[in-house]
Amino acid sequence: MYKLNSITENKLIEDITKNYNRSPIQINKLQESDSELLNINLLKNDQLAVTTDSIVEEIEVGIYKDPYLIGWMTVMVNMSDLAAVGATPVGVLVSEILPDFLDDSFRTKLHNGISDACKVCSTYVIGGDTNFGKQLIISATAIGITKNKMFNTRTGCKPGDVLYTTGKLGIGNAYALTQLADMENKINYKPIARLKVGKAICGIASCCIDTSDGVIAALDQLMRLNNVGIKMVPDWNDKMDVNSKTVMKELNLPNWFLLAGQHGEFELVFTVPTEKVSILEKISFQHSLHFLRIGEIQSKEGFYLNINDEPVKLPTERIRNIGSRKNFNLNSYLKSLLEIDSSL
Amino acid sequence: MYKLNSITENKLIEDITKNYNRSPIQINKLQESDSELLNINLLKNDQLAVTTDSIVEEIEVGIYKDPYLIGWMTVMVNMSDLAAVGATPVGVLVSEILPDFLDDSFRTKLHNGISDACKVCSTYVIGGDTNFGKQLIISATAIGITKNKMFNTRTGCKPGDVLYTTGKLGIGNAYALTQLADMENKINYKPIARLKVGKAICGIASCCIDTSDGVIAALDQLMRLNNVGIKMVPDWNDKMDVNSKTVMKELNLPNWFLLAGQHGEFELVFTVPTEKVSILEKISFQHSLHFLRIGEIQSKEGFYLNINDEPVKLPTERIRNIGSRKNFNLNSYLKSLLEIDSSL
Repeated sequence: MYKLNSITENKLIEDITKNYNRSPIQINKLQESDSELLNINLLKNDQLAVTTDSIVEEIEVGIYKDPYLIGWMTVMVNMSDLAAVGATPVGVLVSEILPDFLDDSFRTKLHNGISDACKVCSTYVIGGDTNFGKQLIISATAIGITKNKMFNTRTGCKPGDVLYTTGKLGIGNAYALTQLADMENKINYKPIARLKVGKAICGIASCCIDTSDGVIAALDQLMRLNNVGIKMVPDWNDKMDVNSKTVMKELNLPNWFLLAGQHGEFELVFTVPTEKVSILEKISFQHSLHFLRIGEIQSKEGFYLNINDEPVKLPTERIRNIGSRKNFNLNSYLKSLLEIDSSL
Repeated sequence: MYKLNSITENKLIEDITKNYNRSPIQINKLQESDSELLNINLLKNDQLAVTTDSIVEEIEVGIYKDPYLIGWMTVMVNMSDLAAVGATPVGVLVSEILPDFLDDSFRTKLHNGISDACKVCSTYVIGGDTNFGKQLIISATAIGITKNKMFNTRTGCKPGDVLYTTGKLGIGNAYALTQLADMENKINYKPIARLKVGKAICGIASCCIDTSDGVIAALDQLMRLNNVGIKMVPDWNDKMDVNSKTVMKELNLPNWFLLAGQHGEFELVFTVPTEKVSILEKISFQHSLHFLRIGEIQSKEGFYLNINDEPVKLPTERIRNIGSRKNFNLNSYLKSLLEIDSSL
């Protein structure tokens, strides 16, 4: 009698997948097909939503050290992209590059993180690929569906539209700072993709994007795609996460850096035309969904934020481009941001 | 007026995607959505087929040096998995990890390889992700559809079923040898996924797998999954690629190594019950499809191959496990294979 796992590669795959629940819509069992086969109905007005994202630099520069968090984020960054368009997840494919030096306990934690993130999002690992390489790299591709032409994109907002976020901001960058500056960690960073909200705002939101690269990167991208400007609410500081502000105080850095940094909190930011704000309030109440009003779309170009009670135009292009992830160095990055701060 | 590509990351994505044709079923334009949105119909009996595969070790050990080939293979290895199940491709998502030292010309060739492979398979790059890392790693995820419950899996063959391949064998391993042993290259290695054939044999084949890890790995996997043995045809050597056999002659290595090595030719191997062989012959003639009969499924355990006119049972488990890709070394690999050869 043959055994599948007498073959090293088969055993490796079995070891990984034993941590995962199997999708009820998956037709083939493990190893039994060259491609994963899924029973899905997609009618005339339905769409398939797909996205892919890798965790590379966050590991390399030292923002993610905990293997459980690496696994969790591998799934969540992709789920967050599905959330932004309003899709319901179908599953994820996980591609791992494992360095030789990883021990079993590291890998178990990694796969527990992947498995737990899938459970929270009611989704499944439906396939994957494992290879060996020089550094740990994990990519995932997520697949989802949207029904009845109901989906959000990044385009469609108009001057006057109200800008919202799905939660307090800044935790992504505050967490990155604590990790990079080797501070005692006060930040519990474990984002959950806003899948329920993303779906609920379909047909109400005029555009939507997640804050995977930080808030300013997200809002600057919306400004470019829609050829509009943004004015943040005067009390934007009250929409920032409290613990994150404590981190900034300890480091003597201005709070607006929490919006500028490129490690995201994975909230959604979206716009709603004024005539639909009452509908948003209604669904917020009905479904116990939480939104924060953070700004307004305007025709005047630029991103305006109150600093010392004065609206200031932030150089978002410069802010985004100093954050290029190639050869990242915290000190030179902060130095560049401080130069911008003193020029405001 | 804003420009999207004033932002370094946007420009990078624009530079890459300018080489690619846009899928006609893709709803969102570049940058305009967090997830790619596709118009697909999948009715009650249709399936989504998905697969993911990375090119890592082939680059690291030196089998793939040409960036065009790397791009080509990134798409083809995934298309071949779709071919094996009989799916029609919908698109691929490409995830790149680029080392800093890559020049523009390398990247252009890489993307040309990806683009050309997509064209040959009538498919599209529908999304992707680009990061920077220590070594070049490219992964892709392919999405396809199968209609009316017509798909192939790796399970279902029975003793007596006839074993076929979609083309001459050995070219994958012969190419790997020429590259690893720094021989003058006599092998034109540029596999094309057998998408047309894979679809044509749905409902006729009792199981199907591609030879992405070589022929013996594929057939051993079928034996394990179906609990059967395989007897190769006495003239199996005539089904081997002629140029590949020349390479083996020059290196003074036995031809069965062309089946044993783990760098594939990306043909399909599949089984057909005897009562359906005439149907296979008919569709072969009607659609000008080419098949080679290479063996037979038997109830007796083991993989039997004629060597010096005598049927010999090859230790396929051992053969597969010496090929573990971790820390691959050509000389020790060949030494292990030669030990097996002398024990036959």
